[in-house]
Amino acid sequence: MIFETVATIASFGGRLLKLKHAAKSTNCEMALNLYLPPQASNGKVPVLFYLSGLTCSGDNCAEKGFFQHSASREGIAVVYPDTSPRGLQIEGEDDSWDFGTGAGFYVNATKEPWTKGYNMYSYIVDELPEALFSEFPVLDSSSLGITGHSMGGHGALTIYLKNPDKYKSCSAFAPICNPINCAWGQKAFKGYFGEDQQDKWKEHDATELVKNFGRPLALLIDVGTGDNFYKQGQLLPENFVKAAEEATHLSGVTLRMQPDYDHSYYFISTFADDHVKWAAKYLL
Amino acid sequence: MIFETVATIASFGGRLLKLKHAAKSTNCEMALNLYLPPQASNGKVPVLFYLSGLTCSGDNCAEKGFFQHSASREGIAVVYPDTSPRGLQIEGEDDSWDFGTGAGFYVNATKEPWTKGYNMYSYIVDELPEALFSEFPVLDSSSLGITGHSMGGHGALTIYLKNPDKYKSCSAFAPICNPINCAWGQKAFKGYFGEDQQDKWKEHDATELVKNFGRPLALLIDVGTGDNFYKQGQLLPENFVKAAEEATHLSGVTLRMQPDYDHSYYFISTFADDHVKWAAKYLL
Repeated sequence: MIFETVATIASFGGRLLKLKHAAKSTNCEMALNLYLPPQASNGKVPVLFYLSGLTCSGDNCAEKGFFQHSASREGIAVVYPDTSPRGLQIEGEDDSWDFGTGAGFYVNATKEPWTKGYNMYSYIVDELPEALFSEFPVLDSSSLGITGHSMGGHGALTIYLKNPDKYKSCSAFAPICNPINCAWGQKAFKGYFGEDQQDKWKEHDATELVKNFGRPLALLIDVGTGDNFYKQGQLLPENFVKAAEEATHLSGVTLRMQPDYDHSYYFISTFADDHVKWAAKYLL
Repeated sequence: MIFETVATIASFGGRLLKLKHAAKSTNCEMALNLYLPPQASNGKVPVLFYLSGLTCSGDNCAEKGFFQHSASREGIAVVYPDTSPRGLQIEGEDDSWDFGTGAGFYVNATKEPWTKGYNMYSYIVDELPEALFSEFPVLDSSSLGITGHSMGGHGALTIYLKNPDKYKSCSAFAPICNPINCAWGQKAFKGYFGEDQQDKWKEHDATELVKNFGRPLALLIDVGTGDNFYKQGQLLPENFVKAAEEATHLSGVTLRMQPDYDHSYYFISTFADDHVKWAAKYLL
């Protein structure tokens, strides 16, 4: 048994499992939510990974994101991981809401002391999926999609662009699209990699990665025009779309600017059906 | 201006307004959420009142209940009021989670000191609707429905049974159906009315009220078989159904025992579409 099942909750005809496990890559116990749709009782189901944003855990979107609504109809499992290691006793890990605890940025830190466990890239791409597939054979390891919100949208885009053969679908809600050019990303990359590691920074910047992606893209990105973080220049979706269009004849990035929507779960829940259906096109 | 608009949030194509106003019946400022569906831009829309349960405010269901999903499609406004007066400085009002603050039980208290403002019945039935209709002419005062959860399900059933000409639809999630025979209800009625006021207790007991309802009933009630409060005998839906069946040739109460569901918003959100569509049958 890799996972301890803390709770099993009926939701939209399926089961939401609150799980925890001892993770090697993050050097601590990690909690997550796994939604198994009703179809999981009758055979293998595709898996959609949802990566959360700053300050969130795997619980927020499982409660407020409304993904279970369409996942239960399409027959797709949804994994809601946490956003960082917790309780590593690293000095300063709880000092700010946009760095350290709750803000792992889906990278493997190369700078001390964060190398102690801030390896969310390896956790999300390798350790967590392998653990899930070994303990839940009903999850179809050959049909994976990835999506996320804000910092988790950055995670979804960069992880997809670095592993296009591993994931069949990708979408994002209000993603940080060009972290090396926004305050959130610069603070995180300076902390986890160091100020002088520009090449390392670019390895985790969706706008830089797409320049050399070299194959057709199919991405759905929603951003609210009332999103204060978009207005502050933290998301920069236009930079990503421009780079994608320059890099490929047809970029295949569907960027929808949603009038008046903010950065909250009210925005995510409104368009969750669309993103699950987007994933279903490629996973089913 | 009766209401102050604290926030306007885009949600499922409509607008969620976070409002507050000085209420006479509760003798304090009351906060609420009002969801206006997209159809409200083109004319009057019916109104569904959702009454929350113990410890909740009007915010919980607006975030986690997903009524907006179907309300936006059906063209129904949803009102999410608070569950009690707050900050009245009554001794003991914050001492327990199931009495006082967050636990108004949708009655008008007759016992001191709660008479100071614990008049949630008058607030929900009279003051709040009148205030909303005067400030939001887009709300159709001739087409009202009422629903709720747990203590709010008790509120929805009793308010409907006492005012069948005011509300065209009624449903409930895991309602307290027979408060005079459960611990929650006995504690509340003892506190708000007094131990010796049995007639007053029966005036706010759905199972007692339905005995003399004397007209056809059309109610949808969902209860989860995994609901610990149901198992503890706090809800007693069977008592209500039995009384309804004895009182009318065809009770018209649709009680759905939902396998494994608990008492949480995971349960409410799963069946919110059904309850909005139930209301739409009568309101549209």
